[in-house]
Amino acid sequence: MPYQFQPGRMYRMPTHFGPSLGPRQGEAGRKFVNLESPKITAISVSFLTNQEQLEELLPEGFEVGAEPVVTVEVTYITEIEWLAGRGYNTLGVSFPAVFNGKKDHAEGSFLTVLWENLTEPILTGREELGFSKIYGEIPEPRIYQGQTHCTASWMGFKFMDLKIGNLTQLSSEEAAALISKQGSDGTLHYKYMPKTGEWGKPDISYVTLTPSANTNRVVKEMWRGEGTVQFHEATWEDLPTMFNIVNTLHDLEIKEYRGAMMVKTIGGKDLSDQRILR
Amino acid sequence: MPYQFQPGRMYRMPTHFGPSLGPRQGEAGRKFVNLESPKITAISVSFLTNQEQLEELLPEGFEVGAEPVVTVEVTYITEIEWLAGRGYNTLGVSFPAVFNGKKDHAEGSFLTVLWENLTEPILTGREELGFSKIYGEIPEPRIYQGQTHCTASWMGFKFMDLKIGNLTQLSSEEAAALISKQGSDGTLHYKYMPKTGEWGKPDISYVTLTPSANTNRVVKEMWRGEGTVQFHEATWEDLPTMFNIVNTLHDLEIKEYRGAMMVKTIGGKDLSDQRILR
Amino acid sequence: MPYQFQPGRMYRMPTHFGPSLGPRQGEAGRKFVNLESPKITAISVSFLTNQEQLEELLPEGFEVGAEPVVTVEVTYITEIEWLAGRGYNTLGVSFPAVFNGKKDHAEGSFLTVLWENLTEPILTGREELGFSKIYGEIPEPRIYQGQTHCTASWMGFKFMDLKIGNLTQLSSEEAAALISKQGSDGTLHYKYMPKTGEWGKPDISYVTLTPSANTNRVVKEMWRGEGTVQFHEATWEDLPTMFNIVNTLHDLEIKEYRGAMMVKTIGGKDLSDQRILR
Amino acid sequence: MPYQFQPGRMYRMPTHFGPSLGPRQGEAGRKFVNLESPKITAISVSFLTNQEQLEELLPEGFEVGAEPVVTVEVTYITEIEWLAGRGYNTLGVSFPAVFNGKKDHAEGSFLTVLWENLTEPILTGREELGFSKIYGEIPEPRIYQGQTHCTASWMGFKFMDLKIGNLTQLSSEEAAALISKQGSDGTLHYKYMPKTGEWGKPDISYVTLTPSANTNRVVKEMWRGEGTVQFHEATWEDLPTMFNIVNTLHDLEIKEYRGAMMVKTIGGKDLSDQRILR
Repeated sequence: MPYQFQPGRMYRMPTHFGPSLGPRQGEAGRKFVNLESPKITAISVSFLTNQEQLEELLPEGFEVGAEPVVTVEVTYITEIEWLAGRGYNTLGVSFPAVFNGKKDHAEGSFLTVLWENLTEPILTGREELGFSKIYGEIPEPRIYQGQTHCTASWMGFKFMDLKIGNLTQLSSEEAAALISKQGSDGTLHYKYMPKTGEWGKPDISYVTLTPSANTNRVVKEMWRGEGTVQFHEATWEDLPTMFNIVNTLHDLEIKEYRGAMMVKTIGGKDLSDQRILR
Repeated sequence: MPYQFQPGRMYRMPTHFGPSLGPRQGEAGRKFVNLESPKITAISVSFLTNQEQLEELLPEGFEVGAEPVVTVEVTYITEIEWLAGRGYNTLGVSFPAVFNGKKDHAEGSFLTVLWENLTEPILTGREELGFSKIYGEIPEPRIYQGQTHCTASWMGFKFMDLKIGNLTQLSSEEAAALISKQGSDGTLHYKYMPKTGEWGKPDISYVTLTPSANTNRVVKEMWRGEGTVQFHEATWEDLPTMFNIVNTLHDLEIKEYRGAMMVKTIGGKDLSDQRILR
Repeated sequence: MPYQFQPGRMYRMPTHFGPSLGPRQGEAGRKFVNLESPKITAISVSFLTNQEQLEELLPEGFEVGAEPVVTVEVTYITEIEWLAGRGYNTLGVSFPAVFNGKKDHAEGSFLTVLWENLTEPILTGREELGFSKIYGEIPEPRIYQGQTHCTASWMGFKFMDLKIGNLTQLSSEEAAALISKQGSDGTLHYKYMPKTGEWGKPDISYVTLTPSANTNRVVKEMWRGEGTVQFHEATWEDLPTMFNIVNTLHDLEIKEYRGAMMVKTIGGKDLSDQRILR
Repeated sequence: MPYQFQPGRMYRMPTHFGPSLGPRQGEAGRKFVNLESPKITAISVSFLTNQEQLEELLPEGFEVGAEPVVTVEVTYITEIEWLAGRGYNTLGVSFPAVFNGKKDHAEGSFLTVLWENLTEPILTGREELGFSKIYGEIPEPRIYQGQTHCTASWMGFKFMDLKIGNLTQLSSEEAAALISKQGSDGTLHYKYMPKTGEWGKPDISYVTLTPSANTNRVVKEMWRGEGTVQFHEATWEDLPTMFNIVNTLHDLEIKEYRGAMMVKTIGGKDLSDQRILR
C-alpha cells in the first residue's frame, strides 16, 4: 500500500519518509516556541544608493520605498530549537519597498537575497516561505581592536567584506525608541518555483510577507556605529551560480553611508505567520 | 521600472538579478554540452528487502517493480561544466517501481532520496527537476587494501557506511551486455512544493521522470564485486531534519546482498529532458 | 647572500621568510597584550577514575596528584589577537600530577592531550610550548532546553560527547573563593621531538610548565552543574593517527562524576612565561 | 608506575598513549609498503626569477643551483595507506640549490614551504622529517575546457591561482628520458624547532635531505604544457600567520615561464630514508 499524506501535517521532499522536520514542525508535529532562543547577533551597514539601481531589482507590483537606502545585514544565530540547539549564519541585502498588489498593499523591507551557511534552512526558507536564500560561507566575525569584520565567500572566493566600529551602546530607552520607530508591515519576498519541463515557466510565482510582529523576540543590547561594506567583483569561473548577484551588488553606487548597527536579541518566532500577498 | 522576466529564459530565486545560472542555463543563456565531462565514479551496493517495506515508501500511483531490490549508490563527480569545472558527490537510494498515472505509465528506478554535498545542485535539482535532494557530507572514498569505503555524515554524525571489494573488471562486451539489459524508462521522482501559509497543502505535487537516454555518457570502465551497506540509527538530536529518513533506511531488512558495482563514466546530459508524468 | 637569523626574534619552520608570526610575536616583533580579549567559554566535566589507569599515562618523574580525578574541558575561544580577531576551539584531558625532577618540583594539572580545530595554534603550541596538541573537529556547542552538548570528531567519526546541564550561577564571592582555592603551580606538559633519521630517538624531551599566574584573565561568569562525558571506541580505520588515544580515554573507568563547570573569561596571556622543568 | 618509552619505536606528542601512529609506523609498529598506493596527480608550473631574490631565501651553507628557476607544484594524493586510504593535497614552492656543509655536500631541490590541507601529515612532516609544512585549504582542481585551475586559500582568503593547459602527453620513452635526466641528490630542507622559554634560540636546527631514490613510485602518465601561477598579496589581517610568506612569493619576479607539467604516479615510499646533513 502506497503511503498517504497525513492531513494537517507539513511535507517537503522527500515526502516518502513521513511529515517534514523543520522550523515549523518537529517530531510528531510538535511546534517550537522560540522563547529563550535562538540567540542572534545582527550586524548591519546601510548606505544611500541610486533609486534607479534599486528599481531594477524589483518585480512587477513593487516600487522603492521612502528612500533608496540599502541595508546589508549579517546575523550569527545560535541555540536554534529546530536544529536541536545548533546555529547558522546569514547575510542579507534589503531596501525599503512598497507592494501594490491586486488585493494587498504592504510597505516593508524587500529582501533581495539571503545567503546562509547551512543547506537545511535554505530549503525550508525557499520552499515554505519564499525567501531568496542561497548558500554562502559565512564564518564567525573577526573582532580585533574595536573593529568587527564580517566576511562571506564561496569555495575560496571571498565576495564580501563588512566592517563596523566606533560602537556606542544605546540605553534601553534609546533602543526602545528606535525599535518602535521601525513601523513597517514586515519583510517582502518574491517566491518563484519553475515548472519541470516547460523551461522558463513558473509553477509558483507570488509575493510573500513576513509580518513584522515578533512577540517572543527581546532586544538585549543595541549599538550604533560606523561601517563599510564591499561586494567584490567576480567572474563566472569564481562564482558560476551567482556572479550576476554579487556583481549587481558590487555595482550599486554607495553615495553615502548611513551608519551601522549591532543588535543582540533572544527569542523569535517560527515564521508560520508567513503569508501570500496578491 | 521593475524588471520583466525575459521570455524563454529560466529563473530561480532570487529572480531579481536576471535569469538563473545552473546546469541547464549558463551565462547569456548558453547550454552546457557535457561531452567530455563530467567524470563520474559510481559505487553501488544492492540488496533484497521486503516488498512491504518498499511499498510504504511509494506515493499513490506507484507500485514496487519486478523485485524489491534496493540500490544504494554513491557517486563522485568531477569536471562539471556548469560549476566551471568543480565537482561534488552524491548518495542515492532507489528501487524498481512502476508508475500508473491517469495518463502516463512508466517503469524505472524510484529515487527515494539523494544526498549531495553541495547546495547549488540541491536547489536546482529540487526546484527544476523534482529530485528529492538533501544535504549530506560525502567525503572522498577511502581506498585501502582492495576495499573502497564510502561514508556519509551530517555535522559530525556518520549515518552511512558502504564498502565494496573483490572487484573484477568486466570486458567491454560484458559491460555493453549489462548496460543494454538495463531497459527502463528512467528514474522516477515525486516533486512536492508547499503552499506558503496554507501549511500542509502543496503548490506543486506531481511525478517527474528522468528519461534513461543519455547519449553523451560513455562507460569507460566497469567492475563487479561484493559489498555491504549500513545506515546508522540516529536520534532527533543527531539529525534533526532527517533522522526519520536515515532510520527508515536503517530498518530495511537486508535479506540478501545482490552484489556491488563500480562504474566510471565520462559525459552526460543537462537533464533538460526531465518531464512531468500525469 | 643567504639570510641570517635575526637575534632576539623567534623563528618557526619555514624560517626562510623571516621571523615567525604567532601568539608570542606579531609583525615586526610586536607583542600581543591579551587585555580585553580573547573571550573564552570553558565547559568541563570531571570524574573519579582509577589511580593505576592514570599512572600509566605519566612519563618518568611524575606521579598522580591528590586524587585521580580526570577533567575533560572544551573551550570555545573568540577574538584572538594574534589571529587578527578570529577564534578556535579546544578539547583537553587533564588530571592532577606532581613532577619531581632532578632540579624542579611542581604540582599542577597534567595535560595529556589537547585537540584543537585549527592547525596554526597546534604548531606553535607543540613546538614552542610543548603542549600535546593534535587536530580534531570541535564544532560550536549545541544548546537546547537547558543542556549544552559538546562534541568532537575527525573526518566524520564522532569520538566524544560531553553534556552539561542543571547549571547554577555562582555569585562573585563564590567564584572568587573557588578560583583562589585552585592553588597549583600550573599546567604540566611533556615536550618531545624526534631526531630525523635516528628513528625512536628524540632531539627534544623535557617537561614544560605553564605557570598558573594569568594576570590579564578576568572571570566574568561561572556556573556549577552536572555533566557526563563519553569517548567512543574507534578502530584504526576510523582514527588512524589517534585511535590509541581515544580508546585509552574510552577505557578510563568513570567511578563517580565530580560535577561540571562553565566559566566565561576575558583576557589572557601569551604564554611566553612557559618554561622548561628539569 | 609511569610508562617507559619502548625501545626502537617512534614517538610523537602526546607520547603518553604509546608509540606514535604515522606514515613510518602503524599499529604495533608495522610499516607501510606504499606499493600500489598512494596515487598522486602532480601539477606544476616553473618560472625563471632573479638569483638574488632566491639567495635571500636560503639559510647559511646553501647557494642557488644551476639556474634560478622556481617550481610551484600542487599535488592531489589519494589512497594513502597510513591514513587508512584517505587522501590530502599539497602546494610546494622549490628551486635548485646546493648545500655545502661541514661534512656533507648535496645538490637538489630546496623546498621553501609546503602547504597541506590536513594537519596530521603536517605534524609528522615537520617533526620527523624537517619539512616546512604549514596549513592551507587546497580544494580539488577545477578542470574546464582543457584548463586545469588549482587554488589555495586560508579562511576565505585565496592566496594562490595556478593554471595549466595546452597539455601534450609524453610517450613512455619521452617520460623515461625526462625522469632519468632529473639527476639530483633529492629534496633539501631546513629543520628548526625552538627551545621553550629561551625565545629566539633553537633546540633543533639542521639541514635534512629526502634522497631522490623512490623505487616503488611508478610514473603512469606525464604531460607537458603551459601554465601560469600567481600568489596574491595579503595583509596581516588576511593571513596573520603567513602573509610574509605569501607576499615574498608574490614579489618574486617572473622573468619567463619555463613550462608546466602534469604527472600521475602510483606508489611511493615512507620517507624513512630522510636524514640529517651536517
